[in-house]
Amino acid sequence: MRTLITILFIICSCALSRAYEIPTEGGKVHNISMPGILMKGDRNYSVYLPEGYERDTLRRYPVLYLLHGLGNTNTKGWVERGNVETIANRVIAEHRATRMIIVMPDAGTGGPGYFNREGWPYEDYFFQELIPYIERHYRVQADASHRAIAGLSMGGGGTLVYALRYPEMFAAACPLSALVTFPARSGQANGGSAIDKYPQVRAWAESAMEPENLPLDLINQADETRLDAFRRVRWYIDCGDDDYLYEGNLRLYLLMKEKRIPMQYRMRDGAHNWLYWQSALPEVMAFVSQAWADGKGN
Amino acid sequence: MRTLITILFIICSCALSRAYEIPTEGGKVHNISMPGILMKGDRNYSVYLPEGYERDTLRRYPVLYLLHGLGNTNTKGWVERGNVETIANRVIAEHRATRMIIVMPDAGTGGPGYFNREGWPYEDYFFQELIPYIERHYRVQADASHRAIAGLSMGGGGTLVYALRYPEMFAAACPLSALVTFPARSGQANGGSAIDKYPQVRAWAESAMEPENLPLDLINQADETRLDAFRRVRWYIDCGDDDYLYEGNLRLYLLMKEKRIPMQYRMRDGAHNWLYWQSALPEVMAFVSQAWADGKGN
Amino acid sequence: MRTLITILFIICSCALSRAYEIPTEGGKVHNISMPGILMKGDRNYSVYLPEGYERDTLRRYPVLYLLHGLGNTNTKGWVERGNVETIANRVIAEHRATRMIIVMPDAGTGGPGYFNREGWPYEDYFFQELIPYIERHYRVQADASHRAIAGLSMGGGGTLVYALRYPEMFAAACPLSALVTFPARSGQANGGSAIDKYPQVRAWAESAMEPENLPLDLINQADETRLDAFRRVRWYIDCGDDDYLYEGNLRLYLLMKEKRIPMQYRMRDGAHNWLYWQSALPEVMAFVSQAWADGKGN
Amino acid sequence: MRTLITILFIICSCALSRAYEIPTEGGKVHNISMPGILMKGDRNYSVYLPEGYERDTLRRYPVLYLLHGLGNTNTKGWVERGNVETIANRVIAEHRATRMIIVMPDAGTGGPGYFNREGWPYEDYFFQELIPYIERHYRVQADASHRAIAGLSMGGGGTLVYALRYPEMFAAACPLSALVTFPARSGQANGGSAIDKYPQVRAWAESAMEPENLPLDLINQADETRLDAFRRVRWYIDCGDDDYLYEGNLRLYLLMKEKRIPMQYRMRDGAHNWLYWQSALPEVMAFVSQAWADGKGN
Repeated sequence: MRTLITILFIICSCALSRAYEIPTEGGKVHNISMPGILMKGDRNYSVYLPEGYERDTLRRYPVLYLLHGLGNTNTKGWVERGNVETIANRVIAEHRATRMIIVMPDAGTGGPGYFNREGWPYEDYFFQELIPYIERHYRVQADASHRAIAGLSMGGGGTLVYALRYPEMFAAACPLSALVTFPARSGQANGGSAIDKYPQVRAWAESAMEPENLPLDLINQADETRLDAFRRVRWYIDCGDDDYLYEGNLRLYLLMKEKRIPMQYRMRDGAHNWLYWQSALPEVMAFVSQAWADGKGN
Repeated sequence: MRTLITILFIICSCALSRAYEIPTEGGKVHNISMPGILMKGDRNYSVYLPEGYERDTLRRYPVLYLLHGLGNTNTKGWVERGNVETIANRVIAEHRATRMIIVMPDAGTGGPGYFNREGWPYEDYFFQELIPYIERHYRVQADASHRAIAGLSMGGGGTLVYALRYPEMFAAACPLSALVTFPARSGQANGGSAIDKYPQVRAWAESAMEPENLPLDLINQADETRLDAFRRVRWYIDCGDDDYLYEGNLRLYLLMKEKRIPMQYRMRDGAHNWLYWQSALPEVMAFVSQAWADGKGN
Repeated sequence: MRTLITILFIICSCALSRAYEIPTEGGKVHNISMPGILMKGDRNYSVYLPEGYERDTLRRYPVLYLLHGLGNTNTKGWVERGNVETIANRVIAEHRATRMIIVMPDAGTGGPGYFNREGWPYEDYFFQELIPYIERHYRVQADASHRAIAGLSMGGGGTLVYALRYPEMFAAACPLSALVTFPARSGQANGGSAIDKYPQVRAWAESAMEPENLPLDLINQADETRLDAFRRVRWYIDCGDDDYLYEGNLRLYLLMKEKRIPMQYRMRDGAHNWLYWQSALPEVMAFVSQAWADGKGN
Repeated sequence: MRTLITILFIICSCALSRAYEIPTEGGKVHNISMPGILMKGDRNYSVYLPEGYERDTLRRYPVLYLLHGLGNTNTKGWVERGNVETIANRVIAEHRATRMIIVMPDAGTGGPGYFNREGWPYEDYFFQELIPYIERHYRVQADASHRAIAGLSMGGGGTLVYALRYPEMFAAACPLSALVTFPARSGQANGGSAIDKYPQVRAWAESAMEPENLPLDLINQADETRLDAFRRVRWYIDCGDDDYLYEGNLRLYLLMKEKRIPMQYRMRDGAHNWLYWQSALPEVMAFVSQAWADGKGN
């Protein structure tokens, strides 16, 4: 009886709201900013704080850094298109993942993205300012075995390079539909004109073309000690069978197999779009949760 | 080489668009309207026409009628929140479902919904005007074995009642998170005040409370001949384990088991929201495709 | 090159073995026995020890107790039909679950099963002898927050009753296709003859019919303190839409909803068979791993 | 009430049988043989006939040819390890696939397998004797648009080569964990000794090494007309991320992309074993059903 009355009230509220959907309870996404020194000016970011964060004031949480793609920002991306709040609440509610903080930084809509360029020391900002800021301002388990990174497309490339440059910083890394290889490597002559036309693409492509930002080179040049560091990161790589970025991802898979770097690889049905990334996110959250639970090096 | 240049051009276009996502090729959703006689005035509807519809001018297609929930319309619902175009294109591209026309009618945001009321002969409109209109204006396989119906929440209730009232009209019926039972049945005294407060809920509740619109009653009162007609429809029922409408759906399951009406039932993890319905739609499309392929009565 | 030679050798070995399947590396199932006092004589059990158990001699592991169904034993059941070794190795290798010990006891093929009867003090044996024996003889994390229980059919009933009788003993409980209600409750008169015919069924049914072994009664009779204890266990309940035991499971779901005992419930497509249980096991392993990771009471 | 009595009887019967599992109703696998002319002597095969085959004596069915791997036979393979009867019954019962006949031929445990060799004209037997025999002796829809082929490992290689040699014979082809490339191509010198040791592997490797049996060569050498024929087959390729045959499968994917041959490709979690193939079979059955429903060339 009481259930039914409750239902009626829910229906009433819904009928008056825009859409007949029950809002998920649980964590919330906050869109805010932090002061930036290296990047000269405030930097926006979004942060998902899980259910109970306000209440359990002694509890500390692991952190997933979640990177957006080219043309997106911290809000236009995982927050608005990726439905991160609803998905994270569901996955945590069904106990497939642990309660975590998800930090979504802003690498700009068109600029050079996640790598350092003159006047855009983004990678330095990420490791020297963003991570420390998050660990000072939120109740975070501030060590590598409770930190993970994931991202899509250009942010998948960022995920790869960050975790290959600083493997000791992350328990797990999950590049999704990642930009692994770049036109410049095999087709600069023809690609050049396209790059010239659009200055923001040029800025991004130039930073991505630097040898130190090419994931396959970073793996190829690694010695055994370095490879061992890569092997201690848990990798989860996912790229759809209809994604136009398939080639770089498969070259990555073949190279990691050759170098005996353990990884999980998925080629599910799908293309380079939000349907794919929305369905990848629960797997990523479960995967990093298990990595955190097992501890590094398991 | 050519692939890589292509990629660069795609990236360029994306960088300039709002979001770095490759648009799906394939079918398109059109939001239009049709003249209404019974309903006195034009009625909006949305229609998804699959890839190739314009080109293969001799080919005819099966039709899925897809109903929205309370507080939604034809556009605010499956089209905007449900991502129907992208999902349908993907499911068809991966050959999990056949090319189909999907018709999404508009039953109003707050009114009495899918059932007949004074001044709102919606069910009559649906069967006497909408279906014939669609079958005249689109290249449709205009028979019951190529017609199916599905819907969510209030539209799941509509799906149920329509398929129970006209079982000979549909090869398959797929109520999702359906409103199966109503407060009025067991808690009218207390529910009444809530109904009084919001006139649009009152209008809807009154139509839903009519004995002829109660799915469980329709099944309970059916004789063997009628039950046989129900048994020839292929049913796919889906309601999440955290959906507040679980009780009506489980009573439906138990009753159909008792009456030996074969059905598929899923209780996946999830609640009453678009995450659930977006992940249900591919299953629905595959299910109705197989029903059409097998023909009625298999 | 070396890869290809390796392949050839693998193929060679396979061609000479019975089936062309690469054996999974990883943990192993051992079929052994332990001395029994209460049960008067040795009791068989099977135990899955994960990859690395022999090597990492300081590491301790959480334990999943996994119960068989009526007519099975520790070996004829999860080991032979359920493919537990291969599945557990896969799920752990892909990091969906943590490395765990899985203990599969033997409750007899036809006898009274998991409950105490005259001359068959099985429940006492389970809690007073088996669990302590396992915790003495294996490197176990010997506390409730690293212990879970699951089982199928009659073993699902055992799982339910054990976790309801000793909720403080388990972090998680996962009844699969569980025998929740019994004929005796509503149809003793007619059911009696069937029971009379087969003595082993009689023995089992009599123990299951005892009021203290009826899961729904245990929940109905619980006061708030007791219900709170139930709420601290993480429940994962799974019963297929074509399983003939659907009714008891759905009554359990409805009762747990009424009593506000949080649970995960799945009704996937399927019936009362090993296909269903084999596909349930990875979910169970992931679910209990997350429960162990989060600690009790999260 | 009657349900409960029924349950008791089911339980009784089960308690007396070896395992507490309800047998699936539906189709049956028959292990039989047919006279062989080319192969000089009777050839065994297994055939799954779907529910209703005996009863609906006018109905004709589409056919899936399902090939075993090296070291298996028609029975030791899909029938015994692959659980084909139970899986096919489930997938058809839930309407994910249409009722079909599944033919599982015997290509020998160690011999040259699916290709023609001196004294082993297997491919000729397959197309000139087996298919015609099946179409004469069973109620089959005996045309290419109702015929499909699938197989695992060595049978995946057979599937590929058969569908590339006779693309006009099959609506769909589904190689699973397929043997696509062979050691001989890049490592004959070292591989040779292994081949020498085991005569049955030598026989098989020699037939597989023939240029006309190398799938990648068949695609590379095809002109546009031939490629168009390949494009009309619906391809579903599946190979786990831990399968040691990943390289050949990925080379196949890259080549088909380059040649614009549409395909579905899956890299799920898993290795070269029956867990993987059992979970692939429902997808294969659904995929070929949709191909048959749509007709060739859609």
